[in-house]
Amino acid sequence: MSKFPENEIELTVPFHDIDVMEIVWHGHYVKYFEIARCALLESINYDYPQMKASGYGWPVVELWIRYPRPARYGQKLRILARITDYDPRLRIEYEIRDAATGERLTKGYTVQVAVDMSTREMQFGPVDALASRLGC
Amino acid sequence: MSKFPENEIELTVPFHDIDVMEIVWHGHYVKYFEIARCALLESINYDYPQMKASGYGWPVVELWIRYPRPARYGQKLRILARITDYDPRLRIEYEIRDAATGERLTKGYTVQVAVDMSTREMQFGPVDALASRLGC
Amino acid sequence: MSKFPENEIELTVPFHDIDVMEIVWHGHYVKYFEIARCALLESINYDYPQMKASGYGWPVVELWIRYPRPARYGQKLRILARITDYDPRLRIEYEIRDAATGERLTKGYTVQVAVDMSTREMQFGPVDALASRLGC
Amino acid sequence: MSKFPENEIELTVPFHDIDVMEIVWHGHYVKYFEIARCALLESINYDYPQMKASGYGWPVVELWIRYPRPARYGQKLRILARITDYDPRLRIEYEIRDAATGERLTKGYTVQVAVDMSTREMQFGPVDALASRLGC
Repeated sequence: MSKFPENEIELTVPFHDIDVMEIVWHGHYVKYFEIARCALLESINYDYPQMKASGYGWPVVELWIRYPRPARYGQKLRILARITDYDPRLRIEYEIRDAATGERLTKGYTVQVAVDMSTREMQFGPVDALASRLGC
Repeated sequence: MSKFPENEIELTVPFHDIDVMEIVWHGHYVKYFEIARCALLESINYDYPQMKASGYGWPVVELWIRYPRPARYGQKLRILARITDYDPRLRIEYEIRDAATGERLTKGYTVQVAVDMSTREMQFGPVDALASRLGC
Repeated sequence: MSKFPENEIELTVPFHDIDVMEIVWHGHYVKYFEIARCALLESINYDYPQMKASGYGWPVVELWIRYPRPARYGQKLRILARITDYDPRLRIEYEIRDAATGERLTKGYTVQVAVDMSTREMQFGPVDALASRLGC
Repeated sequence: MSKFPENEIELTVPFHDIDVMEIVWHGHYVKYFEIARCALLESINYDYPQMKASGYGWPVVELWIRYPRPARYGQKLRILARITDYDPRLRIEYEIRDAATGERLTKGYTVQVAVDMSTREMQFGPVDALASRLGC
């Protein structure tokens, strides 16, 4: 179990995310991760508007996804996002499960770095605006 | 250097791929990889129509991307896709470079498995239809 | 007021739908319309799985959208979808409002035709599977 | 024939734009229109960077598409964009044809208004930066 915050959302697979094989096209999971990540960051009051106010952008610099089982049209999904590290980079893990059965379909992580919006330079070391919200 | 086929395409970053930070939203690179992968598979006569005719679907089961440098609106990109393995899984690596300077912006890989379309079961071991096209 | 069914859904604008101008890119509203349309069709038991079982596909053949006011990141939207005609074509109107204030942001319509999946031919006149669900 | 500029681009339908019916999902044509529109605006030196430099944003306020025939995976398309009006609004028409046969698949138009980026107010009447590029 993580000592850092986690948050879970639910969503229903829309028709436009389904490909010719009648499964979610693999690139759309990046959106599902992002919706879960933004809800998590909002829950600690550090979503995009607060990031911007703090003077930092947080581009994603690494992404990994494993897809053991496909999701299908109309399927209800639960997406868990969990912060696993924040210093020097913000690392978030994800798990997507079928909302009804709890079966795990997809997992992955993203890594983000802080970029100072005034200088466009990458910030090394923890960003106070984030660390303080994590109680660190 | 790979003994397997590789192929390079060029594309220009469209406006709808740019986010609030004025850079390509990280999820859109999955499309760029796919366009390069399909061109590569077409070059060995095993793109989606030939996959289907061979009785197999090839879902992506793993994806990894690293983004050292962002791409911007209107930027011309060169995307190299290279098969690095086919047995038991099809693994393809990607490099995205600025078309003018050659600077590397993004790299990554995908892993695909063969699924027998009649039984919906995963195929273990190499698929003849692919292996023969790779001269294996 | 329509004599045909209508249905309303709610959604929150995700980060990946926002463009450089900090507003929803105009093409993403087509997804919002579709999510509302599918929920409406599901409410009369004629969503994609039932369409398929009835032997018909229903491609969109016309789309119109007017955007008086932009939507922004994190904004909660209410999207109303309303069937306004079904013979010979399925016509659905949409209204997108700010969920909090009720201010109308966007409106539009789509037109769909029935295509017999066995012959790939367009069906002229009403389709029983749809008409019966509309009580016609 | 229009007295205003027109421009044609070519593109190949990517796999991720194809839906369960094996045709391009109707919302993706908005991207095709935009790629053609940006190429047209670039040809008169008034694409997004020049718009921004001129102090105006140009949000799309109306969109209409008719889809007589579907496009399919790998199909090569020619997309013509043509300015039909600029005062008080920028109106552009589009035609999508099969690149090989010339058969028309899709047509539509967009309407854009100028928004002064410093005041966020809509500009009534023609914008000099655009009018001069149109020789008006």
